[in-house]
Amino acid sequence: MGSPSDAGSAVRGVSQLAAELRRFAEEREWQQFHTPKNLAMALSGEVGELLAELQWLTPEQAAQVMAHPEAGARVRAEIGDVMIYLTRLADVLDIDLVDAATDKLADSARRYPVATARGSAAKAPRS
Amino acid sequence: MGSPSDAGSAVRGVSQLAAELRRFAEEREWQQFHTPKNLAMALSGEVGELLAELQWLTPEQAAQVMAHPEAGARVRAEIGDVMIYLTRLADVLDIDLVDAATDKLADSARRYPVATARGSAAKAPRS
Amino acid sequence: MGSPSDAGSAVRGVSQLAAELRRFAEEREWQQFHTPKNLAMALSGEVGELLAELQWLTPEQAAQVMAHPEAGARVRAEIGDVMIYLTRLADVLDIDLVDAATDKLADSARRYPVATARGSAAKAPRS
Amino acid sequence: MGSPSDAGSAVRGVSQLAAELRRFAEEREWQQFHTPKNLAMALSGEVGELLAELQWLTPEQAAQVMAHPEAGARVRAEIGDVMIYLTRLADVLDIDLVDAATDKLADSARRYPVATARGSAAKAPRS
Repeated sequence: MGSPSDAGSAVRGVSQLAAELRRFAEEREWQQFHTPKNLAMALSGEVGELLAELQWLTPEQAAQVMAHPEAGARVRAEIGDVMIYLTRLADVLDIDLVDAATDKLADSARRYPVATARGSAAKAPRS
Repeated sequence: MGSPSDAGSAVRGVSQLAAELRRFAEEREWQQFHTPKNLAMALSGEVGELLAELQWLTPEQAAQVMAHPEAGARVRAEIGDVMIYLTRLADVLDIDLVDAATDKLADSARRYPVATARGSAAKAPRS
Repeated sequence: MGSPSDAGSAVRGVSQLAAELRRFAEEREWQQFHTPKNLAMALSGEVGELLAELQWLTPEQAAQVMAHPEAGARVRAEIGDVMIYLTRLADVLDIDLVDAATDKLADSARRYPVATARGSAAKAPRS
Repeated sequence: MGSPSDAGSAVRGVSQLAAELRRFAEEREWQQFHTPKNLAMALSGEVGELLAELQWLTPEQAAQVMAHPEAGARVRAEIGDVMIYLTRLADVLDIDLVDAATDKLADSARRYPVATARGSAAKAPRS
């Protein structure tokens, strides 16, 4: 039997988020705009806004950005926007986001064995 | 008590994925590369690869892309890559991805009430 | 001897734009922010804003966007921003933008001969 | 009367590049793919590839990337690709790239006067 905290956690899972985004679009009759190409463009646009929050910071400032109330809130909001469009795009394409990422991670584990990849930027994944 | 299927679902949640990505980076001593700016750039690069899969398709072809075995597999893989870097970036910044998206969705619900937003592209969210 | 129209044309060339952007940055002591990584992020951010102008339009609406005074002005301004950061990045890296594009075009002409590439989306360049 | 060097410069100008790209597309009957939305997606894709070349480099490594023969050639090729799609998109929309950038620079000069903007990241342009 699930405890209340389990239930809370379930509410906040990716599949629940996807369902809420689907209903949000349906209520507003926005499915017509939510084509794969349009959602991919929107995703790219939101990533652009996220980069804009970080672009002029030094690496050290960027590492501390969440300690800055205003900049940290903007970064969190942009990451939320990116997740919204990524989740919506995956839902429209009927792709399980976490499964797709897990499969890709398994690929990377094969391509970059610990013994040879350790500490090497050259071995960092390119795709 | 969680059933086996609950457990399976938990294994595939975002927080579990984040933990696996963290361990993957730590084993390879890649944390030094995984700064917020670098991860944001990598996220943008993966979104670019995703767009490249869709860019020359007609809207109709894109809507059916998952029915095409090769193109569908490439799109799923690119979405997996995007999710990997988004999850890793959020983890490094200590942001809960689904919470951040849920908060942004609540904002959008306030800004785009159903009554006025219905069917209108002009009301589609810009950020 | 250059005619007035030649001179006007020269003023508006890429190398002149690059020089103006360099002076603009120097006067404001912004060279410290204009590293290759930061400028590449800014370029990506501006491309994201450009996509945001087009993302919810139908293909037909997007083809006519310049006939719409407000949306057309926004698209032109975003394209101007993209060109600014691309020119600035190329200048910082000492790359001639038009030469680099011309060399890439010559590559594409070899990879996509007219006889076989005609009308085929599959042969459209991927990079 | 134009001198030989004027002629050479003209050959490598943006308007000449735009004309070559137009002819390249027409010969292959690719105009059907070169809609504003598709070209904007392609532009974003190429910027993603450019970022991928720089993402794991330290700021110091990125500043020296052109001194590295292989990495430098890749960066120059990606910048060429970005310029190709930006030029093609501007041509399809009938926008003069350098004029659009020059107008945006004039805006920025008004918004960021030298006296107040000097050395301040906070004043660096966001769009």
